[in-house]
Amino acid sequence: MSEFDIIRDIFAPLTASAPGAFDLIDDAALLEQQNLVVTKDLMVAGVHFLPKDPLDLVAQKLIRANLSDLAAKGAKPIGYFLGCVWPKAVARDSIVQFARGLGEDQGRYKISLYGGDTTMHSTKTGPLTLSATFFGTPPRQGMTSRSGASLGDDLYVSGTIGDAGLGLAALRKEFKFTTVDKASLSGRYHLPEPRLSLGAALAGLATAAIDVSDGLIADAGHLAHASGLRAEIEAVAIPRSAGAASWVAAQDHRWRALAKLVGFGDDYEILFAAPPSMRRSITVASKASRTEVSRIGTLSRGDGVLFLDEAGNPIPVENVGYDHFS
Amino acid sequence: MSEFDIIRDIFAPLTASAPGAFDLIDDAALLEQQNLVVTKDLMVAGVHFLPKDPLDLVAQKLIRANLSDLAAKGAKPIGYFLGCVWPKAVARDSIVQFARGLGEDQGRYKISLYGGDTTMHSTKTGPLTLSATFFGTPPRQGMTSRSGASLGDDLYVSGTIGDAGLGLAALRKEFKFTTVDKASLSGRYHLPEPRLSLGAALAGLATAAIDVSDGLIADAGHLAHASGLRAEIEAVAIPRSAGAASWVAAQDHRWRALAKLVGFGDDYEILFAAPPSMRRSITVASKASRTEVSRIGTLSRGDGVLFLDEAGNPIPVENVGYDHFS
Repeated sequence: MSEFDIIRDIFAPLTASAPGAFDLIDDAALLEQQNLVVTKDLMVAGVHFLPKDPLDLVAQKLIRANLSDLAAKGAKPIGYFLGCVWPKAVARDSIVQFARGLGEDQGRYKISLYGGDTTMHSTKTGPLTLSATFFGTPPRQGMTSRSGASLGDDLYVSGTIGDAGLGLAALRKEFKFTTVDKASLSGRYHLPEPRLSLGAALAGLATAAIDVSDGLIADAGHLAHASGLRAEIEAVAIPRSAGAASWVAAQDHRWRALAKLVGFGDDYEILFAAPPSMRRSITVASKASRTEVSRIGTLSRGDGVLFLDEAGNPIPVENVGYDHFS
Repeated sequence: MSEFDIIRDIFAPLTASAPGAFDLIDDAALLEQQNLVVTKDLMVAGVHFLPKDPLDLVAQKLIRANLSDLAAKGAKPIGYFLGCVWPKAVARDSIVQFARGLGEDQGRYKISLYGGDTTMHSTKTGPLTLSATFFGTPPRQGMTSRSGASLGDDLYVSGTIGDAGLGLAALRKEFKFTTVDKASLSGRYHLPEPRLSLGAALAGLATAAIDVSDGLIADAGHLAHASGLRAEIEAVAIPRSAGAASWVAAQDHRWRALAKLVGFGDDYEILFAAPPSMRRSITVASKASRTEVSRIGTLSRGDGVLFLDEAGNPIPVENVGYDHFS
């Protein structure tokens, strides 16, 4: 029983009368009449962040993970509703530190808190549980969906892939990075950068887009499945930061290392599809939004995801996720 | 450090640029441009419901508690976003039972699920934590706020008070009720009835309204404080169900018993203010919505809440809440 099975089999039927819910397969819902794009993400201590992570950074990650969903849809954020369940033993200072992180990113992204609820667990250790519902306006070209890709479309991804997963490994001392790489990779783990400008610039150009949060391969699978196609991704085309490149170079098996990078989560990049005729426009959108974009593959007939080496042979990939990092 | 202090001192400043957030003192926010009223409520196992409560009833309580907020604002519900954090040991059947409760009330209240997030705790026992963000359209007369009451306004409350608290006492076998009373009171605990029709009928008549969820006295205090006034409530005017009346009659001290009733939470009735000139219109609204309404007091100069006996003397009241029920 996976999260996806539960959503598809048990919760999606509850949206039958709401076309803007997209059967719960998209990053966000569209309230057409109200001209709003809405997304909701949960974060739980011990699951989505380390229980000892500084709370201002946790607050910023909560904001940015949600903004990343809006970014992939091309939406312009307005504000959010916040739910916090604190451990009974929480100190006032911790809540203040958390709110400081919220305030900082509210200023950065020009958004506001609109409401919410705050309560306490019945136990001292009950894990800090955060829920945020973010809303924004869709682009005038219409919200970029997950399901609009066509056969033969190019696949692109913004930024670099695998950094947050390596950052977590660095924080857990599972691999020895240089000081510079460790700072940069752990920074990507703590503070993702939602690609709002790029997302807005892609409206009307991208045929489909998804926020990369479960891992590049997993999310490529979601986009491809929603569009009724197969994603073919070239391993050598995966954009890597300097830190990730050093890590790959230090591994015994280059292909296995690349397969791990694309299995990590928390990238918060935008994976999107666009027809080959749009290549020049995509370059323009990338430059205008000052966000790197890499062409990493295509959409073909079939289903699932193929991760290919230079000879075009499939590389075995698992969506290994954080817990199985080794 | 209370929930209210945290909200006022730490979170309310984060809404400075959002007038529709009402400094986080109202039941719901108003997104004026989008013509939406939005509310968010959390429910945590062991805090807001009993860990052994049937999950279809928990789902319905989550929906109804949120709808009660919209009802107090006169809003017409449209749908909601749902966040669920399940204990790691959850069985698929439990999730199915939960979703069945959602589906049942979606039909009853003509609302739909629009999106959300579902995840698992890292522990087997991590308490089931639910978050819902509900939205609806405000009445054309404008959303009924918490802060609009005037000096001399009458105070009214819908339905009966204290039943859910007594229902919890019945479920915990803390008092011996008749079978009929137990069924009816525990029913009020599990399945509150959001007063949506009354709330809509009060739009433009009530000067202020609040959903009674923290206890009548506590919520009267919130309404009065938001309006810059004092609430004076007559103990004998508190509407009681047959079960509550029997319980009061069985107590040694009548005034103390009444003081307990108004300290219980989870009533999900509407407490509202209206000028004496509106008395006839309030009766019409009550009849049109088939919802009992009782006039229980007035708003006077000052602050806080006075709970008065027949001679006009104040009765000591604590907002005792569930945990201190005895």
